[in-house]
Amino acid sequence: MQAAQALFFDVFGTVVDWRSSIAREGRAFGQRNGLDLDWAAFADDWRGLYKPYMRKVEDGELPWTILDELHRLMLVEALAQNGISGVPDTEVLDFSRAWRRLDPWPDSVEGLQRLKRQHIIAALSNSNVALMVAMAKRADLPWDTVLGAELAGHYKPHPEVYLTAARLMMLPPRACMMVAAHNDDLEAAKALGFQTAFVRRPQEHGPAQTIDLEPTGDWTLVADDLPDLASQLS
Amino acid sequence: MQAAQALFFDVFGTVVDWRSSIAREGRAFGQRNGLDLDWAAFADDWRGLYKPYMRKVEDGELPWTILDELHRLMLVEALAQNGISGVPDTEVLDFSRAWRRLDPWPDSVEGLQRLKRQHIIAALSNSNVALMVAMAKRADLPWDTVLGAELAGHYKPHPEVYLTAARLMMLPPRACMMVAAHNDDLEAAKALGFQTAFVRRPQEHGPAQTIDLEPTGDWTLVADDLPDLASQLS
Repeated sequence: MQAAQALFFDVFGTVVDWRSSIAREGRAFGQRNGLDLDWAAFADDWRGLYKPYMRKVEDGELPWTILDELHRLMLVEALAQNGISGVPDTEVLDFSRAWRRLDPWPDSVEGLQRLKRQHIIAALSNSNVALMVAMAKRADLPWDTVLGAELAGHYKPHPEVYLTAARLMMLPPRACMMVAAHNDDLEAAKALGFQTAFVRRPQEHGPAQTIDLEPTGDWTLVADDLPDLASQLS
Repeated sequence: MQAAQALFFDVFGTVVDWRSSIAREGRAFGQRNGLDLDWAAFADDWRGLYKPYMRKVEDGELPWTILDELHRLMLVEALAQNGISGVPDTEVLDFSRAWRRLDPWPDSVEGLQRLKRQHIIAALSNSNVALMVAMAKRADLPWDTVLGAELAGHYKPHPEVYLTAARLMMLPPRACMMVAAHNDDLEAAKALGFQTAFVRRPQEHGPAQTIDLEPTGDWTLVADDLPDLASQLS
């Protein structure tokens, strides 16, 4: 097995804790707008629209739309689902950008710093580039560069997203490793010849998480967190 | 004047000292291959082919070709110009990648670190992404992300290169500042509504430099180096 020269990271759930962060942002949004909700449950509702909206784009029901804007469309729908209306557009826009203000898992920054010493580390997310740059500046994520869906004009798990990243790094897939807490992301990457690392994030969906608790494929590596991944790769 | 949220940097000449670095790499290449040349003059010959090769791509004489590969084609021509033949392909390929091993100007890393605290800082070079990532890792250039020609499918000064960078940052040109030691780069950016900063690099072409010694346009700022730019922007 050739060592991976570039590590490509899924970000939402793998590097950052979207559920707690969106719940925190929701509480502030609720206070400003007089809304009393279970904001962790709202985060689940909002995130629940993620894959359906990706599919709308990939199926051509929506034209190519960057994730910042999909987040806004999903938020409008999630608010309506929860019986909320009349929130000013500027408040909706600001809350939709809460995905730029997600906190990393406690081990992420240290893990990425260690991994960066030996490897190219790049975000390979469905995030658009501006979202990921804003998140990285706030959260101190030390990416060598930001890749991802916007540069491919497709959303994961479309093969073009992974292949565009490898092409931009001038590396064959076998010299690249996809790092994710999601088995389906790794499955798509492995099918193209990428190395794969599953990172356990058993709290991504909160205490009642039922999916992605364990690796379900024959991945190159399985790690408990990013420092563990760094130790296994060194 | 709105403050610039993103600073886009020309890299070759503005952030890194290509002439001294290529001369250094040339001496090592010469020793390995038994070639005795004035390697600073050879660096000038090689770099002299830069704009003609960009033009070949923009004129359609060459299909879209990334800069790493143009560097190799230019090197083959520069070696022939200097009467050198018979160098093994692997040696030519390795020397062509010398552009990934350029040293920053002594002020660049400190300047970029200071600028990064208040602004998005991104490479906006004719470099392909892999070249720029490799250079940044070696030289500790702390880019928030790497943008540039490859993402636009055009070479500067084509407008698409600048506009693609602004679009990926979700910013209007007036909220972006192009930073370069080259008046023609700034002219192209200014024509599109970008803010502009001229950085003096009077040694880019060595002690006998005649061009770009002074700003020739009405740029937003003129700086002596990158820390000076940081001071003026803060």
